[in-house]
Amino acid sequence: MKIDNINVSEYPGSTKKYVEGSLFPIKVAMREIHQHPTVIIENGERIEKPNESITVYDTSGPYTDPNISIDINKGLPRIREKWVDMRNDTIELDDITSEYGKTRRDLKDLDAIRFPVFHKPRIAQAGKRVTQLHYAKKGIITPEMEYVAIRENLDNKERGIKTYITPEFVRDEIAAGRAIIAANINHPEAEPMIIGKAFSVKLNTNIGNSALSSGIEEEVAKAVWSCYWGGDTLMDLSTGTNIHETREWIIRNCPVPVGTVPIYQALEKVNGKVKDLTWEIYRDTLIEQCEQGVDYFTIHAGVLREHAALIGKRLTGCVSRGGSIMSQWCTEHNSESFLYEHFEEICEILNKYDVAVSLGDGMRPGSIHDANDRAQFLELEILGKLTQKAWSHDVQVLIEGPGHVPMNKIKENMEKESIACHEAPFYTLGPLTTDIAPGYDHITSAIGAALISWLGTAMICYVTPKEHLSLPNLNDVRDGVIAYKIAAHAADLAKNLPGANVRDNALSKARYEFRWKDQFNLSLDPEKAKKYYLESRRDAPDADDRFCTMCGPNFCAMRISQNVTGACDK
Amino acid sequence: MKIDNINVSEYPGSTKKYVEGSLFPIKVAMREIHQHPTVIIENGERIEKPNESITVYDTSGPYTDPNISIDINKGLPRIREKWVDMRNDTIELDDITSEYGKTRRDLKDLDAIRFPVFHKPRIAQAGKRVTQLHYAKKGIITPEMEYVAIRENLDNKERGIKTYITPEFVRDEIAAGRAIIAANINHPEAEPMIIGKAFSVKLNTNIGNSALSSGIEEEVAKAVWSCYWGGDTLMDLSTGTNIHETREWIIRNCPVPVGTVPIYQALEKVNGKVKDLTWEIYRDTLIEQCEQGVDYFTIHAGVLREHAALIGKRLTGCVSRGGSIMSQWCTEHNSESFLYEHFEEICEILNKYDVAVSLGDGMRPGSIHDANDRAQFLELEILGKLTQKAWSHDVQVLIEGPGHVPMNKIKENMEKESIACHEAPFYTLGPLTTDIAPGYDHITSAIGAALISWLGTAMICYVTPKEHLSLPNLNDVRDGVIAYKIAAHAADLAKNLPGANVRDNALSKARYEFRWKDQFNLSLDPEKAKKYYLESRRDAPDADDRFCTMCGPNFCAMRISQNVTGACDK
Repeated sequence: MKIDNINVSEYPGSTKKYVEGSLFPIKVAMREIHQHPTVIIENGERIEKPNESITVYDTSGPYTDPNISIDINKGLPRIREKWVDMRNDTIELDDITSEYGKTRRDLKDLDAIRFPVFHKPRIAQAGKRVTQLHYAKKGIITPEMEYVAIRENLDNKERGIKTYITPEFVRDEIAAGRAIIAANINHPEAEPMIIGKAFSVKLNTNIGNSALSSGIEEEVAKAVWSCYWGGDTLMDLSTGTNIHETREWIIRNCPVPVGTVPIYQALEKVNGKVKDLTWEIYRDTLIEQCEQGVDYFTIHAGVLREHAALIGKRLTGCVSRGGSIMSQWCTEHNSESFLYEHFEEICEILNKYDVAVSLGDGMRPGSIHDANDRAQFLELEILGKLTQKAWSHDVQVLIEGPGHVPMNKIKENMEKESIACHEAPFYTLGPLTTDIAPGYDHITSAIGAALISWLGTAMICYVTPKEHLSLPNLNDVRDGVIAYKIAAHAADLAKNLPGANVRDNALSKARYEFRWKDQFNLSLDPEKAKKYYLESRRDAPDADDRFCTMCGPNFCAMRISQNVTGACDK
Repeated sequence: MKIDNINVSEYPGSTKKYVEGSLFPIKVAMREIHQHPTVIIENGERIEKPNESITVYDTSGPYTDPNISIDINKGLPRIREKWVDMRNDTIELDDITSEYGKTRRDLKDLDAIRFPVFHKPRIAQAGKRVTQLHYAKKGIITPEMEYVAIRENLDNKERGIKTYITPEFVRDEIAAGRAIIAANINHPEAEPMIIGKAFSVKLNTNIGNSALSSGIEEEVAKAVWSCYWGGDTLMDLSTGTNIHETREWIIRNCPVPVGTVPIYQALEKVNGKVKDLTWEIYRDTLIEQCEQGVDYFTIHAGVLREHAALIGKRLTGCVSRGGSIMSQWCTEHNSESFLYEHFEEICEILNKYDVAVSLGDGMRPGSIHDANDRAQFLELEILGKLTQKAWSHDVQVLIEGPGHVPMNKIKENMEKESIACHEAPFYTLGPLTTDIAPGYDHITSAIGAALISWLGTAMICYVTPKEHLSLPNLNDVRDGVIAYKIAAHAADLAKNLPGANVRDNALSKARYEFRWKDQFNLSLDPEKAKKYYLESRRDAPDADDRFCTMCGPNFCAMRISQNVTGACDK
């Protein structure tokens, strides 16, 4: 098997820019969008006033750098390898540890679909913890911390915009548990990013096959595609065939942190029989994935035996896959969840690779009716206790949140999470603010996502138009990502994040000056904006008119307004 | 010219239902969505438990009633004609009043595109006022008031849901100026609807040609289409050719109130030369449109001479077409706006036909940067004074609002409007919560629209994906309407409007029980939901599976959850 290179290249009108660190020899990637000059006619003379380039956050990794040649069959450059090495607290293993992983490796008929390159897995030296939280607590600033500090600031300093984000601030936020850098030592291809309420709101995308559809090539394409459009992290939620091999291809080619829900693969290993799940199989799965380079695990350790009774009182029961699996396991075994019982052992595995735990909300409401009920908030209390346990093992923590919640009940979610979980970053799925729009749930949920991230949620998990209906395709991924970039950015603006409005102001200025190409290039989806404009202006493909077909030339308010203020340039 | 009948018919799985009035011989149209039974296996026996039909608000008019035959060339049944007649305070004119209207009528070469049927225009008897506000102030309950009371309640009473909405309550809200029923006596085809914060949130759709595109047939198709998908009112914003004739076709076939911005047509009459606009031309335009049956006029009477100086301080100047026109007129004539100067005369025209005034926000911000600035709030204060003037003439009032506003500045808009304009219903365009997503502004604005309508905005004006780029087509209208139905409904839920969650609960129950067809039919866009589901399940076109391709059979949380709670039926 050989995957052709992905059809993703430079952003239009943009160049890749690298900002160097001052503490470490790091190069922080950003995207610079160039603008055309403003043209003014003064005393009959044509004067061009230049417009500054706009620097924006860039999640696309090396795919949009024409100076880096990409071969999906070899994987991305391993930029963090040296940084990890320099810390001198890890060792390289000659072989993988997981029994299952070894079995897969030895199956000859998988050769055809296996990722071609093997990298020796890394693990903490005996007795060491290698997490960003561990370093932060010790007062150490890592290259990852400096990287995200620079990345969050873009060119704020050059623009004279005051910022509170320094490497020290990043360290302190991580030490306090209010932010995380999900960065497995075995995923050195990823560019560090930070999730925390003091920083720009992030968005996660979900991809992955199911038993019914999609192969490796398609999932890798979705992964790269989602980063290109703005996904900050990526969850591989595969539940179909060849989960191990699919994940390897994705991680080796993914410039953003990768998350999984290990119980999915564990269940595949026991042929879908929930009752047959054991701690040993789950443990082996964790190690298998830690060594592949997964950056964060969703673990539904807060779903307890007692939840089954509460599910029965709901309109839509339990809508979390992991939550329903664990609930069934508890019921069938009439015993407490093995994830809950073994949580400290789990943490002791995770801190050897720096895998963050994303405490799953198995009891998230799946309908407006079930929002903010006892099942949900009981679990949240338990997640709070697990948070403290994880922190005591220096494991970084995210808290997953709902789901379906009407707008008037959203604030309570954020407040309760903040108190119960000691300000650990909240990571919500939407929430969807109504149930009545399947086919448009990227919109029902973007409303809730914007609102809850304004209130302090650090990362929002995208929902595509296909939610509740089928597996998303490339178009759905794009629609989902853009809807969530909108929600995240609207929240950054509402939070008055330093420099958040630079891009809005530039785009609006370009719009007002009829610099159409700049308006397109500054937008979240230049291709679509351009397409919509041009499809009604086939006679004017250069897009230089001082109006559009919405109002026509005589009714363009901006044009008239410029006549009024004398700012007209043609 | 003959228009083929519109390709809009019954909603799937639904029937038209009429609820009779108890005060008046009226029949209030609603849509009833039927459901399949829930199937349970108990002791090996298959038991069917019926599910109630769900009654939902229906904006589609007779188009979805198979018992009414529609001919676009004849217009819709004139249901309100008798009600108006019964009041005995109007007369029928033998001819139209407007000079311009007469000129158009006499142009032979317009015969080909003229609407084929002429109805004599109605006007108030000398000295009479025929507005719903006039009746309400006198303590009179009209058939329109009973109609909307029944319409808002759906089947709440049958379901045992308590409601505060009675014909008396409707009357009192109208008398207080907190709600309006836009119902021109010359548009008897429209089904009465109410706009006010105590009622369900309404959405307006904009259609209309521009100088660059679209003909009559296309605009009529858009009008009917927007009502089918859920538009509560419709603005014809045509600025191109044959505005008079286009509007006639639209009004005669529109089951919802129609609004316009008369200054657009006035400007067309002076060939786009702002300076040539006069009060006389504008006045004639008002009368022309009053007699055609326009239900509400956007009038930018709050844009004053002093605004021009404030526009210059903005990033994006004035982005309201009407506002920029009036601003230019004031500047060119160096005098105060004729709309402001003649406002009381305007009111005395409007109250003879019961046309509501929608006080335009000519100074709405067109970018995040300009939100909540002096220009905007100065105008709002003036609108408040005009509101009181209009009320003193018994003219019903809406207040138009922004625009582009970041989430953290939305609340101030609602609060200031409420105080400055004495709780007159707020009617906002979005607002868009970021500027950076042209091509997706139905989403950037649905976020703001949901938030501001939760806070009390009574009607939200849709934004399509083509906003800022080009004139919307049928698909864009549909996308815009659905995004705004979502925002409006999310607000109804957040406001705890009686019965608002009935449809959500029914859809979620259908989803949980894998009644796919019911889930589709209960959704805002049954066709799209079904299409998305089926396109990945071509092998299972009956849509009866207990899973979808998103998770596949083994990983369906709802299915597992039903196993846990014993609610499984297969």
